[in-house]
Amino acid sequence: MPVLLAPQRAPALRRLLQEADIVGLGCTISDPSCADDLKIAGIGSLQSAGPTEISFLSNPKLHQQLDGCQAAAVILRPQDWQAYQAAHRPDPAWAAVLCEQPYLMYALLAQWFDRHRLAGLPGGIHPSAIVARDAILEDDVHVGPLAVIDARTRIGAGTRIGAGCVLGPDCEVGRDSLLHARVTLYHGVKIGARAVLHAGVVLGADGFGFAPDPRTPGAWAKIAQLGGVRVGDDVEIGANTTVDRGAVEDTVLGNGVKLDNQIMIGHNCRIGDHTAMAACVGVAGSTTMGRRCVIGGAAMFGGHLTLADDVHVSGGTAVTSDILKPGRYTGVFPLAEHSTWQHNAAVIGQLAPLRKRLRAIERQAMAESAGQSANNKQDTE
Amino acid sequence: MPVLLAPQRAPALRRLLQEADIVGLGCTISDPSCADDLKIAGIGSLQSAGPTEISFLSNPKLHQQLDGCQAAAVILRPQDWQAYQAAHRPDPAWAAVLCEQPYLMYALLAQWFDRHRLAGLPGGIHPSAIVARDAILEDDVHVGPLAVIDARTRIGAGTRIGAGCVLGPDCEVGRDSLLHARVTLYHGVKIGARAVLHAGVVLGADGFGFAPDPRTPGAWAKIAQLGGVRVGDDVEIGANTTVDRGAVEDTVLGNGVKLDNQIMIGHNCRIGDHTAMAACVGVAGSTTMGRRCVIGGAAMFGGHLTLADDVHVSGGTAVTSDILKPGRYTGVFPLAEHSTWQHNAAVIGQLAPLRKRLRAIERQAMAESAGQSANNKQDTE
Amino acid sequence: MPVLLAPQRAPALRRLLQEADIVGLGCTISDPSCADDLKIAGIGSLQSAGPTEISFLSNPKLHQQLDGCQAAAVILRPQDWQAYQAAHRPDPAWAAVLCEQPYLMYALLAQWFDRHRLAGLPGGIHPSAIVARDAILEDDVHVGPLAVIDARTRIGAGTRIGAGCVLGPDCEVGRDSLLHARVTLYHGVKIGARAVLHAGVVLGADGFGFAPDPRTPGAWAKIAQLGGVRVGDDVEIGANTTVDRGAVEDTVLGNGVKLDNQIMIGHNCRIGDHTAMAACVGVAGSTTMGRRCVIGGAAMFGGHLTLADDVHVSGGTAVTSDILKPGRYTGVFPLAEHSTWQHNAAVIGQLAPLRKRLRAIERQAMAESAGQSANNKQDTE
Repeated sequence: MPVLLAPQRAPALRRLLQEADIVGLGCTISDPSCADDLKIAGIGSLQSAGPTEISFLSNPKLHQQLDGCQAAAVILRPQDWQAYQAAHRPDPAWAAVLCEQPYLMYALLAQWFDRHRLAGLPGGIHPSAIVARDAILEDDVHVGPLAVIDARTRIGAGTRIGAGCVLGPDCEVGRDSLLHARVTLYHGVKIGARAVLHAGVVLGADGFGFAPDPRTPGAWAKIAQLGGVRVGDDVEIGANTTVDRGAVEDTVLGNGVKLDNQIMIGHNCRIGDHTAMAACVGVAGSTTMGRRCVIGGAAMFGGHLTLADDVHVSGGTAVTSDILKPGRYTGVFPLAEHSTWQHNAAVIGQLAPLRKRLRAIERQAMAESAGQSANNKQDTE
Repeated sequence: MPVLLAPQRAPALRRLLQEADIVGLGCTISDPSCADDLKIAGIGSLQSAGPTEISFLSNPKLHQQLDGCQAAAVILRPQDWQAYQAAHRPDPAWAAVLCEQPYLMYALLAQWFDRHRLAGLPGGIHPSAIVARDAILEDDVHVGPLAVIDARTRIGAGTRIGAGCVLGPDCEVGRDSLLHARVTLYHGVKIGARAVLHAGVVLGADGFGFAPDPRTPGAWAKIAQLGGVRVGDDVEIGANTTVDRGAVEDTVLGNGVKLDNQIMIGHNCRIGDHTAMAACVGVAGSTTMGRRCVIGGAAMFGGHLTLADDVHVSGGTAVTSDILKPGRYTGVFPLAEHSTWQHNAAVIGQLAPLRKRLRAIERQAMAESAGQSANNKQDTE
Repeated sequence: MPVLLAPQRAPALRRLLQEADIVGLGCTISDPSCADDLKIAGIGSLQSAGPTEISFLSNPKLHQQLDGCQAAAVILRPQDWQAYQAAHRPDPAWAAVLCEQPYLMYALLAQWFDRHRLAGLPGGIHPSAIVARDAILEDDVHVGPLAVIDARTRIGAGTRIGAGCVLGPDCEVGRDSLLHARVTLYHGVKIGARAVLHAGVVLGADGFGFAPDPRTPGAWAKIAQLGGVRVGDDVEIGANTTVDRGAVEDTVLGNGVKLDNQIMIGHNCRIGDHTAMAACVGVAGSTTMGRRCVIGGAAMFGGHLTLADDVHVSGGTAVTSDILKPGRYTGVFPLAEHSTWQHNAAVIGQLAPLRKRLRAIERQAMAESAGQSANNKQDTE
């Protein structure tokens, strides 16, 4: 169950909606009289929310869940509220909050609760943190216990560095960013404003570059990676994701890029603005991805590829050639019961000869029908 | 080579078997006279074990390895011992330990040696650890160097927290658990008793939730993740595995769940009791998996799916729809030499038209054979 | 943009080439008069390098980029330099450095710059590091802030241990190795000389070993992992990669093995000398891989397999059986537009019956043509 605010800290519904709606969505409380008395301590689903929580109906198919809902308030579209009222005589236990975009309003509320939680965390530089003398920490930077901030690294105002983070020398982190515990930045990594980096993230490890070593047959000589990693504004990077530094140029993540957990971005890649990738995706080196791409989980990309803007790749798909046209692309072996799979998979290795056999039969049939019609012609002559 | 106990710390065979057999399997030493003299310092395979190690024969096909075995003792089934004796005149170098389940007895012995190793580690709270004043540490909790335990977090009796772990506020870890080095728990993560969490594990990072941002076309607005992570008793989680916190409700791992390394469990997933997953599996958000499922390495699951109890999924398989019936399921493109693969893979993109062509040929053949039999009929008339 | 040396620290071209060429490749400066004046502060690509950087032409197809190149010097093959001179009247802005292997010379230069960067880092044992009294640190070992080195662990001369690393008891790390920040070694891990381990690497976590627990139906009993991890000389391991300890024997990486990021090597695996794996590869337990294998990204290997020397596996391929012959192997479902994929994938589940249908048609055609030729024979009789 989610952590709730203590009752004495729970805001009134009206104040909560006002403070949360930083976008100006606008929403109306159906029964304004209750708006100052109702205290909202958290958010719940229609089925789980209790009498101090707010909930929301964004998928109209779930409207039946409104019936037994125990929430203090429910955000829903005006038309869904009218339909509910038309179908029910007694007033519901919850106050209706009318809003054209309930899901987005829920997102804003969730952000409000998370900001509130963060604001309650202890601030300042923890005495156990190791901060280089020539590191530059702007106003209101928080550094957690046992974090390390190395020489000449600059942290923007309002940014929070979690416990156990290690920031190498010559890094930059923009303002109002949040580095959760145990993030690692190698030297010279640059990150924009409002970044969210999760635990275990590693930015700037060496790209995978080797050349055959002329001194030992079969051995590899390391190509030291001298480029950096450059990350735009408003980027979120999930737990244990790694982005390697470039060989000579930088590896670049554009503005608004969202990476889920355990993603691997190879050296010299360039990921366009607002592109989002679900977990476990791998992108080999020097691949360029356009803007607003959406990549399903565990998709894999070869190196030196180019993807256009607005490309969607389904989860589990391997991409080994350029995709120059927007659209959705897929390549997944369909699941089956194991014995069925065995029978069908055995044919995969014979597809090329099968196609030949079919072609042979087609030719034969064509020849025969030509022959037959010739015969028939002969017959009638 | 495995680390062995120093000779003066090695237990006698009889005592070792008694202390290790916490299940009550029962085992008999064929020559009891040696049971108190034989000192056992470790476990080895039949081929590698030396004269201070115990070994085991669980796979009868390997019985020939008994011949040159240098172990101090070998655990084997009574019938395998009889067969060995029937085939050999001289007594072996090793003492026979007769047991109906040699593999399980080996597992118990290995647990004994590991408990012994753990018991020898230094205990107490390392002075470099940062433990919040209002954290609650029950009896006999060990906290390693440079670990961080945040406000109001509770650690059960006998639990060991490794070096460099970071436990956020409001967490709970049950008794007799083992957190290896550098485990990260975000705030509000609850874990049951006897957990084993390996290095680099991250529990409770934000689930991957975004909605289109109405202020900027193409941009994403974060949906703050207010749920938690709840883990049952007897759960083991492998190195660098991540389990995200729920959006509103919790992400849940049932009792006895075993996760290997580098697994990703998305937000709101529910994994049933005793389900085991091999390494590199990814499970997208809101998927519910039944009890006693067995998931092969690198299998991938879409979001919002339901899996029944007792489902086995082969390694490398992508699951994109519900599996409501127990059984084994597979979807893997079979391997071939690259040039063969190229020929066959080229046909994959034409399978639908190929099927049409086959159907056309079948129809033609049917029509012809109908025509022919009509002809034949005519002929005979 | 890569970090450059400060002008006063930039070496002259001649000195740089001499110091960097530790292999004895040999290279000639076309205009020796400039060799002592030209200061080289870094490396750039032909398109990005500025007047204090050196660049290189290794791919002759890119020779047109020589035209506008602003670099201080360019490494290229003598024949490419002659061709350039033949085609251009005015002297270029850059000095030509003639070398038969420009790419390898670039690799050596990049190594020089990286060594220079490392040499500038602070040395010694950081006072915040926790080093056990009976740990053995040879000459010139550097230990970063908040690193932990446990009992009896031995670190070879010249090795650098990064911030926040945790090295368990009884480990060995060879000389001149580089452990970046936050590497974890469990107890008893042995690593050779000149290793490079990246942030988040975990060596020696428990292999995934369980046996059915006789006390609870469906539950798993842990098989404690008593083996170790043994790593040869000249091994590089990428960020967040994990190598599990063996069950009884060791898990072994040979000399010169190169592993990219987020790779998982299961317990008891043996990886042959100079084998290289791109990111996100998974190898299940007890698989043995030969020497000089090259494994593409996200390839997956089942357990208990054997691979020969010199096997190449394409990215994204699942290997579920032995590969006993050198060569290149692939098994990837080809990508298509989603709707095309849907049509073709639907046929995958009918391949076995399709093959039967084709066979039936072939038999029928054969029978008919036999019948027809019989008929024809009859006709002519």
